[in-house]
Amino acid sequence: MKHSYRLVIHCPDRVGIVATVSQFIADNGGSLLEASYHADPATQRFFMRTEIEVSSLSIDLPEFESRFKPVADTFNMTWQIRDSLQKRKVAMLASQSTHCLADLLHRWQSGDLFCDVPCVISNHETVRDMVEWYGMPFYHVPMLGDAAAKHASFEKIAELIDHHSADTIVLARFMQILPADFCSRYARQIINIHHSFLPSFIGANPYKKAYERGVKLIGATCHYVTDDLDEGPIIEQDVVRVGHKQDHDDLVRLGKDVEARVLAQGLRYHLEDRAMVQGNKTVIFD
Amino acid sequence: MKHSYRLVIHCPDRVGIVATVSQFIADNGGSLLEASYHADPATQRFFMRTEIEVSSLSIDLPEFESRFKPVADTFNMTWQIRDSLQKRKVAMLASQSTHCLADLLHRWQSGDLFCDVPCVISNHETVRDMVEWYGMPFYHVPMLGDAAAKHASFEKIAELIDHHSADTIVLARFMQILPADFCSRYARQIINIHHSFLPSFIGANPYKKAYERGVKLIGATCHYVTDDLDEGPIIEQDVVRVGHKQDHDDLVRLGKDVEARVLAQGLRYHLEDRAMVQGNKTVIFD
Amino acid sequence: MKHSYRLVIHCPDRVGIVATVSQFIADNGGSLLEASYHADPATQRFFMRTEIEVSSLSIDLPEFESRFKPVADTFNMTWQIRDSLQKRKVAMLASQSTHCLADLLHRWQSGDLFCDVPCVISNHETVRDMVEWYGMPFYHVPMLGDAAAKHASFEKIAELIDHHSADTIVLARFMQILPADFCSRYARQIINIHHSFLPSFIGANPYKKAYERGVKLIGATCHYVTDDLDEGPIIEQDVVRVGHKQDHDDLVRLGKDVEARVLAQGLRYHLEDRAMVQGNKTVIFD
Amino acid sequence: MKHSYRLVIHCPDRVGIVATVSQFIADNGGSLLEASYHADPATQRFFMRTEIEVSSLSIDLPEFESRFKPVADTFNMTWQIRDSLQKRKVAMLASQSTHCLADLLHRWQSGDLFCDVPCVISNHETVRDMVEWYGMPFYHVPMLGDAAAKHASFEKIAELIDHHSADTIVLARFMQILPADFCSRYARQIINIHHSFLPSFIGANPYKKAYERGVKLIGATCHYVTDDLDEGPIIEQDVVRVGHKQDHDDLVRLGKDVEARVLAQGLRYHLEDRAMVQGNKTVIFD
Repeated sequence: MKHSYRLVIHCPDRVGIVATVSQFIADNGGSLLEASYHADPATQRFFMRTEIEVSSLSIDLPEFESRFKPVADTFNMTWQIRDSLQKRKVAMLASQSTHCLADLLHRWQSGDLFCDVPCVISNHETVRDMVEWYGMPFYHVPMLGDAAAKHASFEKIAELIDHHSADTIVLARFMQILPADFCSRYARQIINIHHSFLPSFIGANPYKKAYERGVKLIGATCHYVTDDLDEGPIIEQDVVRVGHKQDHDDLVRLGKDVEARVLAQGLRYHLEDRAMVQGNKTVIFD
Repeated sequence: MKHSYRLVIHCPDRVGIVATVSQFIADNGGSLLEASYHADPATQRFFMRTEIEVSSLSIDLPEFESRFKPVADTFNMTWQIRDSLQKRKVAMLASQSTHCLADLLHRWQSGDLFCDVPCVISNHETVRDMVEWYGMPFYHVPMLGDAAAKHASFEKIAELIDHHSADTIVLARFMQILPADFCSRYARQIINIHHSFLPSFIGANPYKKAYERGVKLIGATCHYVTDDLDEGPIIEQDVVRVGHKQDHDDLVRLGKDVEARVLAQGLRYHLEDRAMVQGNKTVIFD
Repeated sequence: MKHSYRLVIHCPDRVGIVATVSQFIADNGGSLLEASYHADPATQRFFMRTEIEVSSLSIDLPEFESRFKPVADTFNMTWQIRDSLQKRKVAMLASQSTHCLADLLHRWQSGDLFCDVPCVISNHETVRDMVEWYGMPFYHVPMLGDAAAKHASFEKIAELIDHHSADTIVLARFMQILPADFCSRYARQIINIHHSFLPSFIGANPYKKAYERGVKLIGATCHYVTDDLDEGPIIEQDVVRVGHKQDHDDLVRLGKDVEARVLAQGLRYHLEDRAMVQGNKTVIFD
Repeated sequence: MKHSYRLVIHCPDRVGIVATVSQFIADNGGSLLEASYHADPATQRFFMRTEIEVSSLSIDLPEFESRFKPVADTFNMTWQIRDSLQKRKVAMLASQSTHCLADLLHRWQSGDLFCDVPCVISNHETVRDMVEWYGMPFYHVPMLGDAAAKHASFEKIAELIDHHSADTIVLARFMQILPADFCSRYARQIINIHHSFLPSFIGANPYKKAYERGVKLIGATCHYVTDDLDEGPIIEQDVVRVGHKQDHDDLVRLGKDVEARVLAQGLRYHLEDRAMVQGNKTVIFD
């Protein structure tokens, strides 16, 4: 992986954005590793992501930021620039299912998922051994009792997330509905994997519903979490073929592979600043 | 294609069905080209499809049927046997979209779709030239006016279907909602292609809905028509990948390929007696 | 389809290319509809494709070209700019198989393939009726006899291509090996569909070889033709699942769908100036 | 998973095989859970696989075997029957890559891969910790030195395999060429995952070759090992889409997912007696 700065911008569309930004980068000696743009016709918003080779730049990151700010202001940009070597901190929330978590942790260990995992939190003890084998702190936060008790549990989770300075929260089949205030507190930071091809089979028991409907493909959906259940911006989806020979348990088993794969891909897009949100949709600069 | 009889059976599950049927076939010298079974655990129904090489049989089709009847009765079978060389008669209903119809007619002409197409009926004149080039009768049945006028149009269509002795009706993007009595009159004989991955985006304008939801895959669904719109037993589905670069028109264009492919595959299953209906699902012996 | 100019460039990679080009476009009022870049690390070449909205530009195409020339020279660019409404002229060469040709012609007729088809040439009469129904000139150029006779046939084909000012030649399952001088005369203008997943099963009878090898997926490959058989730069590939139930004829039938789809996609990339060649590979700005 | 006996048979094709076998099963009260057949036209061999519900049978497994033997002899059958609850013993051979092994062991632990793993053997220490965490014996057998030294290493591996009574050997990216005598000693028991879509890119460095050829899909192939490198009967294959943006390292990373998935699927077919070998091909009763 080349050392780069990733500059991510969105702003109202108008003539000259690319010219101005790329001229700014060139003026500071910057060599482009990647550059992607999207002008959304519906919203007249412009999205761009640029990877700049660090070794080519004549200025450092703070200097880049302070010089770029007036440029950005001219175009009314929402923007950020991030060092590709600065690891994001991903807190993972799991339940009793292990497949997504095991898949992510193995990718992390083998260097295929570039991030830190400061903690794993679960409402069960099931995954403790695995998490600790990977050398990460594990926290057991039960999810029991009435609404007030659950709310307290989410407060505890938020404390852990903040304590570990996590900037991303992955729901690796967490199976709990998040309170609205939790969702808004970590807006665009929470990534969920839903075990259906949304918008089919929203809510609980999607494989059961898929089995009963007799669909010929089942799928999984990775999306940013909003307070509208299973309705957040979709980052990635994929499917696998099924038929009359597969019963409900087969669907669950086959679905696991798709879930793990789709979640890993969606998280990768997020960590590499490739997933930008526009309204309830995403722009994915893959 | 080898000349075969296709014996299709469903009945309550119990011990000895396969033994009895295959013994019956062997006793008459029959060599099996294919044999497929499915026992549905939910309904305790047994489904089977057997292809018997005609040249190996010592009896003809009527004799087979009369000898097999008492066997079938013993097991309370619903069954039929069909000569693979006996062409099914497929009436096609189209509207202004040509892609599914053009695809089917080309497959028919090149011998990849083994059936007769006794007539094509449309509420527009758009496809007349194409249909007549292929040498088939074309009928224009307008779909205008109030419910009564539309009902009369469907009466006219039913007359044409019956006049041409069609045993299968393909809605090749027909875009009209069929009256309930029409659906029940031709139960399990009408095949529709819906331009979404059902149960996502039921009803009108699925590509618009898919675009607005920001899904990363769009699909098509081939299903038997029941009087419950887009809820009939699914025969085949497939998907294609899309992203933020594709606008609504791109989705329509990309979807056409999937629709044509899925409809052709679904129709093939039907024509080869590979699609059996159980409740609101299908068993596909592919 | 928005009216755009497509500016396609490749040149040695260095700092400032995007800045200079996009500044040039912005200075002339140009609004970007799409912009894609690729820096190839192996060859240190830079590739870019930009779509500029015509209505936003303050200058016309000849003026753009004359003003851009000195900019391009500075960077030692190979470049071209094309009006999206200027239809490319695609001559199609076919043999006895109709599936790819029928697919392309139907897409052309329904407006999904934006080009002119000035002529279709075949060494058989098989497709004449179909071609003439679509209203295109059809030429029968037999491919018989010894090498000299075949060479004369290709001379005749070249005359027809030039007479019709075709800028693109599609081999829609043409099944003839092109002479080296023909290949170099129309370098990067000839698009072939090979009925295997290259580099598997190069040469004749790929489905037979696939059947004998027992592969579980068969495929098709669309590539630019060079004088090295089946070795040209790959534009697009896709596959379909097969198994022991499919015999050789089934593979041929299933392969037809993939061939038609892959050829149509590859040709679309070419016509929209999305396929750039680097060495023996392609950059596809999809 | 229902408790079943899996009866797997192949023999010369002739009339009456299914009838005789299914009559035998029915006579002993056996209820069929699955039944699949294939008559290979090229070799005139008949293949069948039947799952019989244990609770329905009036006889036990040894009695079934002794009674079935004369029936089998009549048809010159090669056959076996296996208790679905009898776990196969799968020895795994690995090298430094962990992705396939980690994937298989996690599936094993979560109950999705029904087998015992009596030992894991590697020529490196890399995977020791992981294997021991799963509670399995790990053996380090270095692969160094000349041909004689390597042959001795394979002797050591064979001893371990036999000591642990393994009946299946999985090469989970083992990366060593097996000696011919080792291959024949464990004929049809060794399953390999090759990191290309065979027959493309046989031998070493397939991702490098794929990158240089510029293919648009890369794949993986699970096959039985014969002494002809990468030429054994293919059990399963799959692919993933790539393009000019992916460099060699990306291909390696993306390929890992396909490799793990294809190997797990191929092994599952083997363990459930769904993969039958005919010549250099397989019949997969999925």
